[in-house]
Amino acid sequence: MTLYDYFRSSAAYRVRIALNLKGLSYTSHPVSLVDKAQQSPAYQAINPSQLVPTLETEQGYLSQSLAIIEYLDECYPETALLPSDPWQKAQCRELALSIACDIHPVNNLRILNYLTQELGVSQEDKLTWYHHWLQQGLAALEARVAARQANQPSTFCCGDTPSLADICLVPQLYNARRFELDLSPYPTLVRIDAACQKLASFAQAHPDNTPQ
Amino acid sequence: MTLYDYFRSSAAYRVRIALNLKGLSYTSHPVSLVDKAQQSPAYQAINPSQLVPTLETEQGYLSQSLAIIEYLDECYPETALLPSDPWQKAQCRELALSIACDIHPVNNLRILNYLTQELGVSQEDKLTWYHHWLQQGLAALEARVAARQANQPSTFCCGDTPSLADICLVPQLYNARRFELDLSPYPTLVRIDAACQKLASFAQAHPDNTPQ
Repeated sequence: MTLYDYFRSSAAYRVRIALNLKGLSYTSHPVSLVDKAQQSPAYQAINPSQLVPTLETEQGYLSQSLAIIEYLDECYPETALLPSDPWQKAQCRELALSIACDIHPVNNLRILNYLTQELGVSQEDKLTWYHHWLQQGLAALEARVAARQANQPSTFCCGDTPSLADICLVPQLYNARRFELDLSPYPTLVRIDAACQKLASFAQAHPDNTPQ
Repeated sequence: MTLYDYFRSSAAYRVRIALNLKGLSYTSHPVSLVDKAQQSPAYQAINPSQLVPTLETEQGYLSQSLAIIEYLDECYPETALLPSDPWQKAQCRELALSIACDIHPVNNLRILNYLTQELGVSQEDKLTWYHHWLQQGLAALEARVAARQANQPSTFCCGDTPSLADICLVPQLYNARRFELDLSPYPTLVRIDAACQKLASFAQAHPDNTPQ
């Protein structure tokens, strides 16, 4: 499989982790967002949304990181990335979507560029925007995960094996650190992130280990 | 079941459609976003993200519209909201997520309020922002759906029964019309939206038919 990838994209980073957890080999094809390679006609033919990632499978091209990961989980059920119980699964998706819908899209590169280039927002106000949505989202996530851990302690967000929720958490905290957010209010999330980082599947997917 | 709801919220509107399609009865409990009811301590205890919707089920509270709809689809498999074939299902989720992650979060009420109240953006620039992300997102969606319809014509986005993709499309186009976006560049989406509106499950979920 070929992954149309960008080393610093949270969404692409999620898919790299999932592919590694499944033990699936893939080729990373860099699409440089800073060079606007995602806007090229060739890439638009693959992904009209002009976003990364896109996974080229035997069936065709698929975009949207969570759709890709759920697809991989169905086709390659070994090392399940979602709990099998419907309620546990729903709670795992809830955590993942609270990152993928409530935090990540608002702080995407295209949004930050629009703020500064189209609306003339200062670098300082852009950083305040970034931290604001991140803090709101992470505070809610910490509250949810800490409450669940109080009832049933576990190594990762949804049990003792990594799941879709952890796959979304780790790239989000990577970006939070890049933008120098103080993570001390989120001790449960930081502890789970550290447990993930110890796994080769997560470490190998890190932006520092990804072709640019 | 009780749905913590807001009549104009796209995400809540999605869940209302899904509940209706499944034939599940529920009570709509309004959470007025304009009155900031979502920030009350009572609501935060139910949903720390301070967003709607939240569904109260026998198992507990669940937020995130797509997590809720997938949960309902697993617990009440009659009138399936996702195709059973993994690749078809992945493509359906791709369409739904391209609305839920790429369009909706960026044009949410809290974002629009931040633009005007915190960043001093004018009403005109706010509307330009709204239309910009909507146009980008709908153009990509039209391209994807039209390409699939060219291969395999169908009444709805993913076949001849409504799916998760249609459930996300209809509220997004409702909001596009509210903000007076010209929908003529998206004829396939408009045609599918019209087919959905003819169904009672969609019509009964409309904001005009929802308690405020």
